[in-house]
Amino acid sequence: MKKLRIGIIGAGRIGNVHAQSLTYFIPQAEVAMITDPNEQAAQRVAQAYGIPAWGPDYRTLLADPSIEAVLVCSPTPTHADIAMAAMRAGKHVFCEKPVDLTLEKIRATARVAQETGRKIQVGFNRRFDHNHGRVRQLAASGALGQVEIVKITSRDPQPPSPEYAASSGGLYIDMMIHDFDMAMFLAGSDVREVYATGVSLVDPRIGEAGDVDTAIVTLSFENGALGVIDNSRRAAYGYDQRVEVFGSLGMAAGENDGDTTVRLSTEAGVVSDKPQYFFLERYMASFTEELRQFVEAVVNDKPVPVGLHEGLMSVALAKAARLSLDEHRPVQVREILEA
Amino acid sequence: MKKLRIGIIGAGRIGNVHAQSLTYFIPQAEVAMITDPNEQAAQRVAQAYGIPAWGPDYRTLLADPSIEAVLVCSPTPTHADIAMAAMRAGKHVFCEKPVDLTLEKIRATARVAQETGRKIQVGFNRRFDHNHGRVRQLAASGALGQVEIVKITSRDPQPPSPEYAASSGGLYIDMMIHDFDMAMFLAGSDVREVYATGVSLVDPRIGEAGDVDTAIVTLSFENGALGVIDNSRRAAYGYDQRVEVFGSLGMAAGENDGDTTVRLSTEAGVVSDKPQYFFLERYMASFTEELRQFVEAVVNDKPVPVGLHEGLMSVALAKAARLSLDEHRPVQVREILEA
Amino acid sequence: MKKLRIGIIGAGRIGNVHAQSLTYFIPQAEVAMITDPNEQAAQRVAQAYGIPAWGPDYRTLLADPSIEAVLVCSPTPTHADIAMAAMRAGKHVFCEKPVDLTLEKIRATARVAQETGRKIQVGFNRRFDHNHGRVRQLAASGALGQVEIVKITSRDPQPPSPEYAASSGGLYIDMMIHDFDMAMFLAGSDVREVYATGVSLVDPRIGEAGDVDTAIVTLSFENGALGVIDNSRRAAYGYDQRVEVFGSLGMAAGENDGDTTVRLSTEAGVVSDKPQYFFLERYMASFTEELRQFVEAVVNDKPVPVGLHEGLMSVALAKAARLSLDEHRPVQVREILEA
Amino acid sequence: MKKLRIGIIGAGRIGNVHAQSLTYFIPQAEVAMITDPNEQAAQRVAQAYGIPAWGPDYRTLLADPSIEAVLVCSPTPTHADIAMAAMRAGKHVFCEKPVDLTLEKIRATARVAQETGRKIQVGFNRRFDHNHGRVRQLAASGALGQVEIVKITSRDPQPPSPEYAASSGGLYIDMMIHDFDMAMFLAGSDVREVYATGVSLVDPRIGEAGDVDTAIVTLSFENGALGVIDNSRRAAYGYDQRVEVFGSLGMAAGENDGDTTVRLSTEAGVVSDKPQYFFLERYMASFTEELRQFVEAVVNDKPVPVGLHEGLMSVALAKAARLSLDEHRPVQVREILEA
Repeated sequence: MKKLRIGIIGAGRIGNVHAQSLTYFIPQAEVAMITDPNEQAAQRVAQAYGIPAWGPDYRTLLADPSIEAVLVCSPTPTHADIAMAAMRAGKHVFCEKPVDLTLEKIRATARVAQETGRKIQVGFNRRFDHNHGRVRQLAASGALGQVEIVKITSRDPQPPSPEYAASSGGLYIDMMIHDFDMAMFLAGSDVREVYATGVSLVDPRIGEAGDVDTAIVTLSFENGALGVIDNSRRAAYGYDQRVEVFGSLGMAAGENDGDTTVRLSTEAGVVSDKPQYFFLERYMASFTEELRQFVEAVVNDKPVPVGLHEGLMSVALAKAARLSLDEHRPVQVREILEA
Repeated sequence: MKKLRIGIIGAGRIGNVHAQSLTYFIPQAEVAMITDPNEQAAQRVAQAYGIPAWGPDYRTLLADPSIEAVLVCSPTPTHADIAMAAMRAGKHVFCEKPVDLTLEKIRATARVAQETGRKIQVGFNRRFDHNHGRVRQLAASGALGQVEIVKITSRDPQPPSPEYAASSGGLYIDMMIHDFDMAMFLAGSDVREVYATGVSLVDPRIGEAGDVDTAIVTLSFENGALGVIDNSRRAAYGYDQRVEVFGSLGMAAGENDGDTTVRLSTEAGVVSDKPQYFFLERYMASFTEELRQFVEAVVNDKPVPVGLHEGLMSVALAKAARLSLDEHRPVQVREILEA
Repeated sequence: MKKLRIGIIGAGRIGNVHAQSLTYFIPQAEVAMITDPNEQAAQRVAQAYGIPAWGPDYRTLLADPSIEAVLVCSPTPTHADIAMAAMRAGKHVFCEKPVDLTLEKIRATARVAQETGRKIQVGFNRRFDHNHGRVRQLAASGALGQVEIVKITSRDPQPPSPEYAASSGGLYIDMMIHDFDMAMFLAGSDVREVYATGVSLVDPRIGEAGDVDTAIVTLSFENGALGVIDNSRRAAYGYDQRVEVFGSLGMAAGENDGDTTVRLSTEAGVVSDKPQYFFLERYMASFTEELRQFVEAVVNDKPVPVGLHEGLMSVALAKAARLSLDEHRPVQVREILEA
Repeated sequence: MKKLRIGIIGAGRIGNVHAQSLTYFIPQAEVAMITDPNEQAAQRVAQAYGIPAWGPDYRTLLADPSIEAVLVCSPTPTHADIAMAAMRAGKHVFCEKPVDLTLEKIRATARVAQETGRKIQVGFNRRFDHNHGRVRQLAASGALGQVEIVKITSRDPQPPSPEYAASSGGLYIDMMIHDFDMAMFLAGSDVREVYATGVSLVDPRIGEAGDVDTAIVTLSFENGALGVIDNSRRAAYGYDQRVEVFGSLGMAAGENDGDTTVRLSTEAGVVSDKPQYFFLERYMASFTEELRQFVEAVVNDKPVPVGLHEGLMSVALAKAARLSLDEHRPVQVREILEA
């Protein structure tokens, strides 16, 4: 079997995760090269997974004609430029989210995709989670009837450093972007209007930096349904990731995953597992699954499961949420898209 | 043991429920009389529970000096007037919610309570529910740390008739009022600001009558926490009543009650009970408990557990929600209170 | 509505429970008299529930022709004699379990029932529990196919005093008798063979008195199914009452009941409620339901739901279990019945 | 890092599973060769996982001095002979269960292990399951106090062919052997006495072949605790694998694993996932974990986690259970061990 030769650009945490998935779990693909400006990081990942080539410059990778697809795992501000360069070099692209912090660049990337005919998939891995995916499947199957309410709870186990929080673009773009995409995925519809609340309760330095760490955002979907997302930067009991879709015929809802199903009953009560700690534990299988589907789409020339429309809309919603918070009013997503 | 002699004004569904609770479960009290303009209804309840006197006119009841306390279970527009008359006749009062649809009358009722020194408890029975009460207890105990997010899901099994929906004052006052009170109970704080969404997805006639049947309302509490309530007039799987409080040290959340804990595992899946059907099933024990505490407060001259402040604020929030929907903007509760 | 006039013989714990059920929850019946050799005990119960007559001697009660049915709540050794006397006095009888510790007396009681045509129901209240009843209902409906395995876990929260344990007839007759009856109820079949293990792990004084406090008993049912019961006199987490029926098409299993559905999630784990503490909490509704069905059977002249066959077989199984333990071999129930 | 070079003898289902685990998840090891009399099977596995050498004869493998450890995944009757040959060839051995159907050969294998100083681990993978392992960990930690009752439910989703059932040695040795080992693992004690019931309810041809398909076995442990195992060859709802340990301070119990945590609530009820289908789904991670610990024991010269004592006792219990069934009496394990 000929394997799809893939290059990975960026040897940080997520580049490492993808290298592992491709090496161990996706027999149809192989990692041909990994690059990172920090060449030692690239080398470490290469040696860990037996990747035959590495280097500091992604252009070397793009220049290798035997490489058919690349994963863009570099810092966010470089995503779009590298993705465009890769497509122009003839590669199919898997691009981490967000594609860019500006709608302009995302749209430019989309134009390049269209011109070159290359595929580009955006890394919203949570769509491939076993629980969330099942909820979506039930909604899409009609088992819930017409979707009326979508609810998402998404809380991190502990807050980032105030420095990171400040530089990340803020909670709505850095953290809730996953939930915006999940909301549209679950509802099967884009969002029309956003109303955002947000406060700083977890770490005052986050508030001083102009960001929020606790937020509830209400959504009105194009299809008439309503939605709500709540985020917190800190949950004492671990990584809280639950979704619920309510429709005219019923409800589908997923609980958190624990490490075991064991319950301990003593005089003190009945104790069960906390949620798995953080995204590398909770979502590891989804990282593999999104790549498996990307590889399959490339190999069999099928549409990718998550494209630039999703990449664009999630960023637009994050911007709408921030504008809503700043101006203390509901914001039409159209205002953002047409700005 | 001398029993507290209680009169019940109104022999409808809730008057009947209270007669049952007092007769069977509250040994400290006895029902001395029940009145209803529909005298046959009064007679039916009287005979069912062995109540020695009944009649068509609540003034007969108020004139009986042996009756120390009354339950006001008449139609909403009469609540405040009867409550005031009862207090002026020297009775302590348990008043069904809402006390009135206007803040003026609620405030007038409060003035009469102060002048007469009579106790008045408002019938927010859900505060006395075993699940919600436990969540509040955990929050109040400090086990959750500082409260940051309050979430309430409240969905009825089936919609009212469009006629009822139209005459009831609308979803926010008729249905969500319970959840507004619950939110303040759980947060241990009043609400500062309300943002309401609402659509008609369940029954178009409800929308035509100017009301909504599906709604999500975001709350900002005085203590800095955020909250969200979702309501639907129709849940295919039954009466959905869940609350969640999230704080700096953890989360407490209650699931629905089913009739049994039995799970049936077959080739088709693992099936457990639906939520108990509606409020008479789900909240019966809470109706008893609120009366038990009312009787205890009267007998031992202690403060009632739910007073007119709660009665006023819940109506103010309902009005704020409706104004928010109408003007499509967040509304300060102060705007309503100072109008 | 004419009410069934009932007399209660025995004003101990269970007599009190039944008085409460009949007074508050069974409108078709009224308690006409209660007797107890300890007349003060009888008086206390009478006054608590408004029972108009009481006294020390059950014969006074049997002599009252207006009393149509009696509840035999006296000490076990007197059950059969009083039940027979009551039937001969023309009363229908509800008799607490065990009917007697000898098969002879139970059979004699059955003969009197046949001669007099009076109804006699045995107090196996757990058959009327919401969870166990649902499991039985699913088994009886065919939803589980052919029953193959029945499992019962039954553990008390704390052991009795060694004195009580010694005088009670031992674990198999005092505690497991409920489970023997439950096993036959769930399987829809009598038991053919019993193999008992039993050890004293909880309190050495129980072992010194010749009894066991921890036991596992295997059953072979007449219908070919297998069963197992485990008992302990002490469960640190409370009263553990679970049943499971496994058949060719699936399984039905009930979990314990807690006081609430609330879960507390903190850094320490996710904690939910312990099982309700003991039988008065866990089985209160079943005590009412067995009486409701008894009253209905008497009033409408229908068969009682649990009769002397069940009373006899449960005692036979307890004897078989003890013989199995003593002789360290499987015992045919026939050996006991034909002894 | 130098990797431990491992040879796999037997390219059937379990050999394939182990090849996968070693290749993907255990960086400390590599598969150097795989053999199977069916050379094509060996080749298929070799090519799937990039194993450099394969062949029909395990003696070739044993003759390779660079191979330090072997996995014996051949048919049961050959386990002991191959394991002994491997140890004599200087290899450490991981041997699938049962080591042999006779105690003589298992003892002979133990003698060879002692003479050669080689390590030998027996493949009781379920000890490494996340749920069962947690229950054991809680028991071993003292959180449960003194262990008093051990309960194991183990049911296959569908029965084997009657031919397989007949040739497999029967349910006690083929299926319940895992549960015998699990019982001793959970109790932290060997078993002293066994009483077995067993019937054929699932497939009459199994009964005609002299075997049972539904069984309950009671255990008395050396440490005084009691235990019970129930087995069925067919569970309509899937692979049912639950364990429970009850002690003086509490209980630890594991539920089945489903694929998701999602619940679907509709008018028909609340439906959650069935148990994962069969052992390859349910226990895959445990297969990896047992090998990881084997490799670690070899590389660091530490004791293996499951040795020949466990291999011997599990077979002895299976024999005791069969003898108990045949002679319809409790059997001392000593009778088997000293036969």
